[in-house]
Formats: sequence, C-alpha cells, structure tokens
Amino acid sequence: MLRYHPLDEQGAITYALKFTDLFPENAQLICRKVGDGNLNLVFQLTDKRSGKSIIMKQARPFARAIGESWPLTLDRARIESQALINHDRICPGLVPKVYHYDRVLALTIMEDLSNHLIMRKGLAARKRYPHFASHIGTFLARTLFMTSDIALPAQTKKKRTVQFMNPEMCKISEDLIFTYPYFDSGENQFNPLIADTVEEIWMNNQLKLEVAKLKDGFLTHAQALIHGDLHTGSIMVTEEDTKVIDPEFTFYGPMGFDIGAVIGNLLLSFASHEGHTPDLGERMNYQEYLLTMIEQIWTCFEKEFRQLWEKEAKERMAVIPGYVDHYLLQVLEDASGYAGCKMIRRIIGLAHVWDLESISDPKLRANGEKLALSVGQKLVLERRQVKEIYDITSRVRQLVELG
Amino acid sequence: MLRYHPLDEQGAITYALKFTDLFPENAQLICRKVGDGNLNLVFQLTDKRSGKSIIMKQARPFARAIGESWPLTLDRARIESQALINHDRICPGLVPKVYHYDRVLALTIMEDLSNHLIMRKGLAARKRYPHFASHIGTFLARTLFMTSDIALPAQTKKKRTVQFMNPEMCKISEDLIFTYPYFDSGENQFNPLIADTVEEIWMNNQLKLEVAKLKDGFLTHAQALIHGDLHTGSIMVTEEDTKVIDPEFTFYGPMGFDIGAVIGNLLLSFASHEGHTPDLGERMNYQEYLLTMIEQIWTCFEKEFRQLWEKEAKERMAVIPGYVDHYLLQVLEDASGYAGCKMIRRIIGLAHVWDLESISDPKLRANGEKLALSVGQKLVLERRQVKEIYDITSRVRQLVELG
Repeated sequence: MLRYHPLDEQGAITYALKFTDLFPENAQLICRKVGDGNLNLVFQLTDKRSGKSIIMKQARPFARAIGESWPLTLDRARIESQALINHDRICPGLVPKVYHYDRVLALTIMEDLSNHLIMRKGLAARKRYPHFASHIGTFLARTLFMTSDIALPAQTKKKRTVQFMNPEMCKISEDLIFTYPYFDSGENQFNPLIADTVEEIWMNNQLKLEVAKLKDGFLTHAQALIHGDLHTGSIMVTEEDTKVIDPEFTFYGPMGFDIGAVIGNLLLSFASHEGHTPDLGERMNYQEYLLTMIEQIWTCFEKEFRQLWEKEAKERMAVIPGYVDHYLLQVLEDASGYAGCKMIRRIIGLAHVWDLESISDPKLRANGEKLALSVGQKLVLERRQVKEIYDITSRVRQLVELG
Repeated sequence: MLRYHPLDEQGAITYALKFTDLFPENAQLICRKVGDGNLNLVFQLTDKRSGKSIIMKQARPFARAIGESWPLTLDRARIESQALINHDRICPGLVPKVYHYDRVLALTIMEDLSNHLIMRKGLAARKRYPHFASHIGTFLARTLFMTSDIALPAQTKKKRTVQFMNPEMCKISEDLIFTYPYFDSGENQFNPLIADTVEEIWMNNQLKLEVAKLKDGFLTHAQALIHGDLHTGSIMVTEEDTKVIDPEFTFYGPMGFDIGAVIGNLLLSFASHEGHTPDLGERMNYQEYLLTMIEQIWTCFEKEFRQLWEKEAKERMAVIPGYVDHYLLQVLEDASGYAGCKMIRRIIGLAHVWDLESISDPKLRANGEKLALSVGQKLVLERRQVKEIYDITSRVRQLVELG
C-alpha cells in the first residue's frame, strides 16, 4: 500500500495511468504544475492525443504563509472531495466533477477548468458575467437549504455534521477572520498608510463586541453545510459558466457566512476600482454594476430559497406562516455581518486579496483599503437594520458619495 | 464475550460479583428492581453484611410509552455514563459517582441515592430545600460554561460535539417538545376539560412561529454540553444535598434549554398547588417560595457564570466589554422561551408530569393545566422583553392575580 508522499509531475502521470482509468493506455500525458503549492500541489494533466485534461489536487500536510509553516490535516482532502460530490448532486454543473479520490495520498482528481478565469481577476478587468448572479444565487440557495434542518431529517443532518466536522480548517477562520484583526497581533499585516484607521478599529469596543457575536455564530450555529471560503478566488467563471471550487473549509455553520463571503468580496472588488479604473465614469459604471450584481444575487437566492422551502421542506414547522420570512431576514442580517468581517480581515489581517494587493501605488491602495474598512464596519454595526438587500447596497452608495 | 441481554435480579448480582470489585467475595447481595423499566432496567444492589449499596442501570434497546414501543439506541448508556463522569469532574458532588460502565450490556453502575427524594415529589409536599438554588445554579453555570466555546479551545469543543452527538434522543425532544403539541397529532394527550385552550394554541400562529424559532435553536445552536432533560424528575434531593441524574439526552445545544427546564418545571409545580394545597394562605406562601427559588437560581447561576467568564475564559474575544452581559441576556431570553415550551408540552403532549397528574379531580387539574398553559405561552411570546429574572417571575405573579 502506498504511503503519503508529495507527487511530482512524473509521479502524477504514473498515478493517473496506474490507478485510474481516466486515460487510455496509449495516452501521451503531459503534466503542468499549477498554483503556488502553499497548501496543495495542483497538477494539470493533458493527453496530447485526445486533448483530454484533468486536474490532480493533492493536499500537503502543512500550510505556508509568509515564510511560516504549520501542520494541517490531510483530512481536508476527504472533506473537500465529499463536499464537491455533495454539491454536484445538489447543484449539477456548478462545481467541478470529481473523478477519483485517494485517501492515503490526500489526492482528488477532478474536472479541468482551465478555460475558466478566477473571478477576482475578471472583476478587476471589469468583465461582465450576465449569468453569474443567477448561478451563484442558485448555488447558495440549493447548497444551504438542502443541507439544513428544514430540508433534512434531523438525524441525517446530525450525521452530516459529524462527517464534515472540520476543526483545523475552522480554527484558521476563527483566528484569521474573527480574532487577530481586532487586536494588535503579530499575525496582522497592513498598509502603513492606513495605520490610524486600523488603530481606531482596535479601540472600537462596539465593533469588537459585534464581531464577537458573529464569531460566536461561526462557532456554534450549525445551520447548513457551508462552503466556508466562498470568496471570488474560489469561483471560476466564463461569460456563460460558473464553477465553485476549493470547499476545504466546508463545515456546518451559519448560512450567512457563505452569502456574506460573496457580497464582501464583490465589495472588496468595488473598493479596489479606484486603483484599476482611473476613468471616473467608467469606474462608477462598473461599481454600480457590482452593486446591482449583489442585489440580483440576493434576489435570486431568496426566490429559489422560498421555492425550495415551499416544495422541499421536511421540517413540519416550516408551514407556519411567517417562518420563512423570519428565517431569511436572519440570514440576511448574518450575511451583512459576515460580509463586513470578511472585508475587514482582508485589509488588516494576514491574508489579503489580489484585487487590492495588485494596486502598486500605496496611496491609491490605501484609498481602496479605507473604503473597504468603512463599508465593512458599517455592515457589521448596522446589520440589524438590514431588512432587504438594498439596505446593504444603499449604505455603500451613501459612503462613496460622502467620501 | 458477553452479548447484550437484559439482566434480571440474579443476573445483576452475578455481574456485580464477577465483573467488578465493588463488593468483597463474601458479600451477601440482595437485589431490588427499581422503576418502571420503560426505557431502562434499574436495580439496587445492597450488601447485607456491610450495608453498602449501588445502582445498576441498564439501557433497553427500545422505549415504551402508553403501550407503544419503538427502537432506541443503546449508545445512550455510553453518552449518559460519559456525561456523568464529565459533570462529576466539573461539579464534584452534584451528580452520582460512576463506578463502572459496560458498553456491550449498555450498563452503568453508579452511586445509590436511595436516601434522596425525586424533587418533583418533594415540591408537591411543599418541602423546602435551602441549598437547592445555590446547588443547581452552580451546576448550570459550571456545566454550561465549562463546555462552551468560551471556556474550551474550539477544536476540543468540536471533538466533544461529536462525542456527544445524540440524534435519536434529540429526535424524541424535537418531536415531543417542539412539534406534536402544536398540531392535532395522535401522539398528544390532554385533559378533555382543557380542549378549548388546546385548540386555541393550535390556531395561534404567532405562538407557533416563536416555538419554530426555539426549535431551530434546539436543532442548530451547539452552544454547550447540556443535560437535555433537566426537569425536577431528573433531580434528587435531601434538605442538604442535590444530585442531577439521568443525562441520557445530553448533547451540544442551547444553554437556555437546561435553565428553562428547571424554571419550567418549578412553574409546573407552582401551577399544581391548587390541587395539592387547598389552604389558600399556605398555597400562596409556597408558590411565592417557588418564585423566589427561581429568582435565586438565576442569581446564583449568573454570579458563578460571570466569575467563570472572568477567570476561566480561553476565548480571546471574552475580554471585550459588554460581551458577557449580552451573552447572559441571550441565555435568559432562551431560558424563558424553553421554560414555556417545556410547560406546554407537559400539558398537551405525550408525557405529563406527576405534579399535575397526581391531582385526581379533573376540574382541579384543569385549573392547574390552564394556568401552566397561560404561563408557558407568555414565557414563549414575551421572551424578548425578559431582561432580568424578575421579568419572568413578575409575569407569573401578574397572571395569578388576574386569574
């Protein structure tokens, strides 16, 4: 039996030929290493004869960030492959197909999405994705509703909670999203030009109290099987197609965390456009497009979620008038709060986003970062006043006009 | 290796001598069967020579209620024994000592509490328990706080959540507490004299919506390792001592569920005293004693919980000003709601309480049942207005004065 060892290009080719029937015997495979290998090794294998290609993703037993390295469970590869299979069943076509999983090597072989672009980059280039709001709204509604206690027998849901218990990956989120950014921790890093704003956040007890409540929800609210890391770097797009990838952080948590991740990352893109789009008219035009996209995502999500509630609910209390309205309002409030947390951590914390990092002028970048921090704080602090999606987007419009 | 089989008296004696060293070889054991055996077989073994006694509790692979019988996991015996050991570590002296656990036989051998009285019966006899509020307040504060994300590293807490995942026992609560009583289900049973009031409840969408929210909290809010069935039949008392028994329903759930169980059951006793205490002065006197007890329980709980938060919190966000106040307010709101649910289910649902069932005159019993339903509904519907424990007790006082 094979023991765990990191694959190299040749090893990847040998594995694919020996342990899978994905390619014919006479295949002429070429292998290309993709990505930075900080958490995972990713290889693209292509058969030169047929043109068929696949992705092999192998988890590494540690994570690396800025020189530091810490051990990290290989079990996340199991969780990721099982989550992808689960999502593909619930939302066919919206995640890459899984072809093969190897527990010992922590290896998943899946559909190649090389003709797709990481969404974050497309947004920086002001690309438009006419089907994205509907796709991601559907993905959110179906994956969240169908794994919840409203749709599943409570005993099945409890088994899933155990299957997807993901303590080590959750700990990364608990620390990096909800803790370090709110203290003067060595793990933080930020643009020195925004130091004053960051220090104000560290002193803002009201904000920190609201973040503590949101963290508590992340720790205790086992509402649905969430993706857990649904930023625009975990979404690959073409004009026609959307694929959600990398559910390594999957666990049973609050629905609003996933929706907030999408909203927060679209708003991080929003905040970055002063750096990417010098022309004011063009910039405002695209920023307005992003806000409309957020509105459409929630609208699609809500519509589909209500249909599922109507048709698929197994929970007997679901028929009670007003229950779905209350439920969605709580999800929206959470989404606002988590969107805010996601924005703040990407400015102050350890892991930043390419949208802003790719702005080379520190002053221009600081403008975007300050805007992101203003929006993020507002979404956390005022989330209980958010009664519809426009209460989020109008707050952003207002902040920009005031700025 | 032994296979599971139900013990009888002789089998219990043989087991104790053969598989434990609880008694000397020359012990003269006598065995007495205790309880109704609906869910568990319970034996008391006494050594006539030394007077030493123990309790042997064996789970049966089914539950029986009113003739019906359904299969029930033996794993609950593991959960119960592990919970008792955990509680004894956290709250020494407040639970029976576990001496021995046998997985195959689903058998727990523990401290004999025959000199203690089931609290429910003591309350019907208007006994007073000067240390009870402090004991149970400590039990609640310590077991709930010390198993929460505030006290435990998040990864440890997640492991405990899996260890104590208890789907089958939870399902009983989900159905019998939060579902059947709110529909005209065959599982319900109630005094025909209160049929009008019960039908009003079935039509009360506002109440049912609030119960749906509380049920959702029971299903999704993995806040602390709760007892899960902390009524006054799970508490054994003497004037000096308090022991919490039978944690078969233990799982990670909302703290307020345990506190609400205690409050709700004291209020069920309150509502039963027209049937037990004909003398008005005496009755009002004891009822006031019960309300004061509820106030003292919360006060003790809160004091101890705040001290633990101050001294034992591992969660870094715990230091944020106002967090503990907010946290406790949520727990109190939940406690009010769950107290109400617990009261209502004991009047309308399948399983009733001896406090009221022992009133033979149906009219007199109906008076108590209606009072319990009024109090229960108020505690559910007005829980968000509950800002301190007196907001609960004053509502009860008010209802009685109006009645």
